[in-house]
Amino acid sequence: PSAVAEAEARARDAVLTKPPGALGRLEELAVWYAGWRDDPRPRIELPQVLVFAGNHGVAARGVSAFPAEVTGQMVANFRAGGAAINQLAEMAGARLDVHALSLDRPTADFTQGPAMSEAEMVEAFRTGWSAVRPESDLLVAGEMGIGNTTSAAAIASALLGGDDWAGAGTGVDAAGLARKRETIAAGLAANPARSGLEVLAALGGRELAAMAGAIAAARMHRIPVVLDGFICSAAALTLWAERRDALDHAVAGHLSAEGAHGRMLEAMGKRPLLDLGLRLGEGSGAALALQILRGAVECHSGMATFAEAGVSDG
Amino acid sequence: PSAVAEAEARARDAVLTKPPGALGRLEELAVWYAGWRDDPRPRIELPQVLVFAGNHGVAARGVSAFPAEVTGQMVANFRAGGAAINQLAEMAGARLDVHALSLDRPTADFTQGPAMSEAEMVEAFRTGWSAVRPESDLLVAGEMGIGNTTSAAAIASALLGGDDWAGAGTGVDAAGLARKRETIAAGLAANPARSGLEVLAALGGRELAAMAGAIAAARMHRIPVVLDGFICSAAALTLWAERRDALDHAVAGHLSAEGAHGRMLEAMGKRPLLDLGLRLGEGSGAALALQILRGAVECHSGMATFAEAGVSDG
Repeated sequence: PSAVAEAEARARDAVLTKPPGALGRLEELAVWYAGWRDDPRPRIELPQVLVFAGNHGVAARGVSAFPAEVTGQMVANFRAGGAAINQLAEMAGARLDVHALSLDRPTADFTQGPAMSEAEMVEAFRTGWSAVRPESDLLVAGEMGIGNTTSAAAIASALLGGDDWAGAGTGVDAAGLARKRETIAAGLAANPARSGLEVLAALGGRELAAMAGAIAAARMHRIPVVLDGFICSAAALTLWAERRDALDHAVAGHLSAEGAHGRMLEAMGKRPLLDLGLRLGEGSGAALALQILRGAVECHSGMATFAEAGVSDG
Repeated sequence: PSAVAEAEARARDAVLTKPPGALGRLEELAVWYAGWRDDPRPRIELPQVLVFAGNHGVAARGVSAFPAEVTGQMVANFRAGGAAINQLAEMAGARLDVHALSLDRPTADFTQGPAMSEAEMVEAFRTGWSAVRPESDLLVAGEMGIGNTTSAAAIASALLGGDDWAGAGTGVDAAGLARKRETIAAGLAANPARSGLEVLAALGGRELAAMAGAIAAARMHRIPVVLDGFICSAAALTLWAERRDALDHAVAGHLSAEGAHGRMLEAMGKRPLLDLGLRLGEGSGAALALQILRGAVECHSGMATFAEAGVSDG
């Protein structure tokens, strides 16, 4: 980010017509956004929402409340405009691009070895990387993939330790949750991979690799990112495991109801903007949080200063 | 609210293309909004933001970090489009109406007796009542008034008990905070009023009475309300003290950084939508929270059902 733009934005914030600090987190968000955009008075005009879909070998192990064909059915729903993310992206005036990643070729069952070869992982990562439009000024990366909370929990376990990362996902019952825990344990045993990207290939899925690629590309283009829930955060975690500053251009959009999400964000030093009990994925929580970030930027860039407005500054 | 519209909205929510409950609080918000609008598939198309400004006799006691003339200066800023609420209302596509209430005639110093006569209170209440456009489909009531956190804290103390309702307001120092506490204690001693509207007249201000009037009018018109921070909530509290169901059409927009706000919301049984450390007033937190409510309604009314989208429902 640009230290100059940040400093200029901070100086501007100090003379806007409000008591110092009265806009709370909105003030720090605006300064952060200004730094990444290298613009002390920015706007959010071209936000982009990417939704990646992938199928998972482990879905066959009964780890989800929904059958695997729902991934493809939901892609059709995204394309027809019927999903939650369609409504939220439209409300935000965001471009929405949907990428279905080889849905007829699920990843391998990671209890038996890596979910993806290195080549498969890189292919999906590149799809995500290329999906980011360089002219975008904000990115939300979302996903759809039956079985992918199992994959995300396995990634968290591999990179952060502990064996209590599994949650209810889309609403699995107690027996399903037990199968999920066994699947994750078996996946960790079968995949001794340890670097972030090795773990992404071994325990991830194509949509997670694509999200990681998109988040990395956004950094190169200086496009701030709003992270979504548990699965998006797990994808981001693989980048963070490689480099601790890899997510400096990202803010956590919301705290998911998927139980372990809070701990994952905490590990990465991210404080969520919203806490509304969402657990849908698709980028939905991030698209909603985009409005908070936009509110911050609009106040920062649109408000009058004390001098301009002729208001006494205390 | 309409029980029929609520039931129809709940039935619709159950068949939308998402796992049950996956939109968390957005789902209950949409059902609540549908009930008040008597429409199982509503939209938010005509939101209205009202900002009321008033001056306070107690401002002369040094309870604020800003001089009293800032109230009028900020009204000019609202009219010129330079304040935070202007940016947030515009972003929400909301109509913004600003009402300056006899700024050249501050309320009486309530340490010496009632801030307003009954007639003065009723006049301000009526201004708020009449400011609500019947065709609005959402209302935010905000305020500006140097000294009004002192008034709001005194109201809370009178209606909820306890003497620890004073906070930093716009950023008063320790000596100012001590003066604020003394002023509130003196106000309570000088005004034995006990009903909600008696307290509103005795310890409130014109902008608080106007907000109470607007919130009451919104209920009559079945217009859902998003409450703002500490001062707006204190105005609402005077209605709640009269009738426990007086705020059923209102949701708490955010938790203010003004320390005692959380306890006030808790007393009224309201859980805030946002917690971003705002403490500006003007309706700013509520205008931002409006986007969350709109997101809820957009998802609810815009999403496809499982049957429409051909998605397996688990």
